[in-house]
Amino acid sequence: MRHYLDHAATSPLRPEAREAWLHASEIVGNASSTHGAGQDARRLLEESRERVAAALGCEPIEVVFTSGGTEAINFSLQGMWAARPAGADAIVMPDAEHHATMDTVAVLVARGAVLRPVRVSQEARVPVVDFAAALPGAALATALMANNESGTVNDGVALSLAAAEAHVPLHLDAVAALGHLPVSFSALRGHAPDGAGLVALSVAGHKISAPVGVGAAVVARSARIAPLLHGGAQQRSLRAGTQDVAGAAAFAVALELAEQERVSEGRRLRALRDRLVGGIRSRVPSAQLLGDPVDRLPGNAHMLFPGAVGESLLFLLDMAEIAASTGSACQAGVAEPSHVVMAMGRSEQDARSVLRFSLGRTTVDADVDAVLASIEDAYRRASGPRSSSPS
Amino acid sequence: MRHYLDHAATSPLRPEAREAWLHASEIVGNASSTHGAGQDARRLLEESRERVAAALGCEPIEVVFTSGGTEAINFSLQGMWAARPAGADAIVMPDAEHHATMDTVAVLVARGAVLRPVRVSQEARVPVVDFAAALPGAALATALMANNESGTVNDGVALSLAAAEAHVPLHLDAVAALGHLPVSFSALRGHAPDGAGLVALSVAGHKISAPVGVGAAVVARSARIAPLLHGGAQQRSLRAGTQDVAGAAAFAVALELAEQERVSEGRRLRALRDRLVGGIRSRVPSAQLLGDPVDRLPGNAHMLFPGAVGESLLFLLDMAEIAASTGSACQAGVAEPSHVVMAMGRSEQDARSVLRFSLGRTTVDADVDAVLASIEDAYRRASGPRSSSPS
Repeated sequence: MRHYLDHAATSPLRPEAREAWLHASEIVGNASSTHGAGQDARRLLEESRERVAAALGCEPIEVVFTSGGTEAINFSLQGMWAARPAGADAIVMPDAEHHATMDTVAVLVARGAVLRPVRVSQEARVPVVDFAAALPGAALATALMANNESGTVNDGVALSLAAAEAHVPLHLDAVAALGHLPVSFSALRGHAPDGAGLVALSVAGHKISAPVGVGAAVVARSARIAPLLHGGAQQRSLRAGTQDVAGAAAFAVALELAEQERVSEGRRLRALRDRLVGGIRSRVPSAQLLGDPVDRLPGNAHMLFPGAVGESLLFLLDMAEIAASTGSACQAGVAEPSHVVMAMGRSEQDARSVLRFSLGRTTVDADVDAVLASIEDAYRRASGPRSSSPS
Repeated sequence: MRHYLDHAATSPLRPEAREAWLHASEIVGNASSTHGAGQDARRLLEESRERVAAALGCEPIEVVFTSGGTEAINFSLQGMWAARPAGADAIVMPDAEHHATMDTVAVLVARGAVLRPVRVSQEARVPVVDFAAALPGAALATALMANNESGTVNDGVALSLAAAEAHVPLHLDAVAALGHLPVSFSALRGHAPDGAGLVALSVAGHKISAPVGVGAAVVARSARIAPLLHGGAQQRSLRAGTQDVAGAAAFAVALELAEQERVSEGRRLRALRDRLVGGIRSRVPSAQLLGDPVDRLPGNAHMLFPGAVGESLLFLLDMAEIAASTGSACQAGVAEPSHVVMAMGRSEQDARSVLRFSLGRTTVDADVDAVLASIEDAYRRASGPRSSSPS
């Protein structure tokens, strides 16, 4: 039996989403076509958009379907930058963001943006006061709703309010938060003035058991933003390209179910996660839980194993059929120390000694038991000068 | 029975591609993860990349999977522009390109590019001599392999050779050509010097009965190109984002089958198409086939119905359960005259009087019969001052 504890990297497609995809894939027609076949496709697409909007607390017209979280983030940041207020050139960004944000901002800096970094706390939380202090006159700001590695939850409402008060447009990356925290665009946006405060929010389907390849940017009606993909009038002319009706339909179903199950699943995952963390710490007393101990994603266990090589731990657990992660899967092929862990004030060595277990919909007690049965031996073998190497 | 004659807008998912998608969607794991589940996903992804590469005559590393044709075109053009040779600012573009190309180039012009338009012939063909004459010193050039509206085939090898000789990087849009014409990147590229000649080629899955939401840019190893989506080291760092393994697997299967069937299907579609065109012309003697009568996509019938309102024809045929198009589906919601037809030297009125029938894998004699049974009456009602309006 395989023990998949890497739901934050990608989560297994759920049967209801698969069914929705299959059903939609039988419709023949481009949703932009005016004939009957096209209108069948369009009807399902717009119905899916309405369901996504209802789940995300926004208007249907504010949902811009994308190919996933990375595109949503790139579109939001590049698009906000392209339509920035005259004279503004600063970008406010915490230093523990996802690579999709960091790398996009790096490109914008190469194009003339000035980075205003915000240091996160040792829990990887964005300090609202520091964030607010960096905002005045900025072209745009961005922040994670919940950190994808440490699991720490940010105060999205406070960050959004600060941006609204500073009249700065804000993007929130809700990819890791979706399905685990309430994500209501209108509640987060509040009474922000046109074009300021929360204007864009990114989500991805495959983190909530929808297929890979679909996501969305929620873009406020009043947002000043330019498209990234040009070539058609689809989606308010903000995202050209034949619309993926099957992906949207599957995403809508998965999102509705995730919202319905959010509270009960959160409770279930938190109990499993706490048993996992407690069990690891009793077997490996030097192990530490990183991030906020309480205000974190329910399925997230971001653990430091002092002196151990994270890559070796990963390899040894994999031998025991346990899938975890050293950090973001996007960089997992590259053995770099986690910038998130370093942003939390830890050493580079510590940043190479972390594992992220992420629990989700399919996680059961046996998965936790498997880790607890293996971790002590794995830790011993992954530590010290004679540590096993995956190479 | 519905008669779907709009395969160029989107083609029905074929069962083998659906099966491949379903099979792949059962793999739990992010292809960037190093654990066993991730490696299962990666293995299928790389096997799919190899199959796509074999079908497209390129190396696997040259296949960059995208969310579709629009992203592939945007990535190619924006990426080539961002990495353009120092001092070069001109873009060579024929005037009958797809909107994904035209709109992207318009954005680049707004960013400082100088457009060098190339007038197409009355068949919508790109004249190689004129194209070659526009190339010297250009930052990049782009052209369709086959026109998506008129169906006219361009001489891709000659255009590529001209770009190679001028030391200008070329992008070819093979979205409409794929599955209907031989598309071999290496054959088209020939012995072009590094970074010049054909460096990028765009294709889309849903035009060959793969799912919507997957496509690829073939990017030569030696190409100078920047990514459009930032955030991870996936795909030579040219396209960040969790890779859609199921989409890639389905695309690979659909592409292989399309290639296997290309010659026989071409023969079959050409016969059906010729019967359609002949039948229409015998019933509506003023109707004309636009584009090259011979050297065109086998399933394409781009017809001018002088004096008729194309939108009305579309509406009336739709009443008879026949799906066709007035042009590119991407613009079909917008009642604009076709820029392709105008680029062919026709009047704006003519550009509003065209229909594109596009035949494909599921087209049978009954579909042709249905059009022939309806077209005369539809033409009469869609013509003159008392024409029916869809609004």
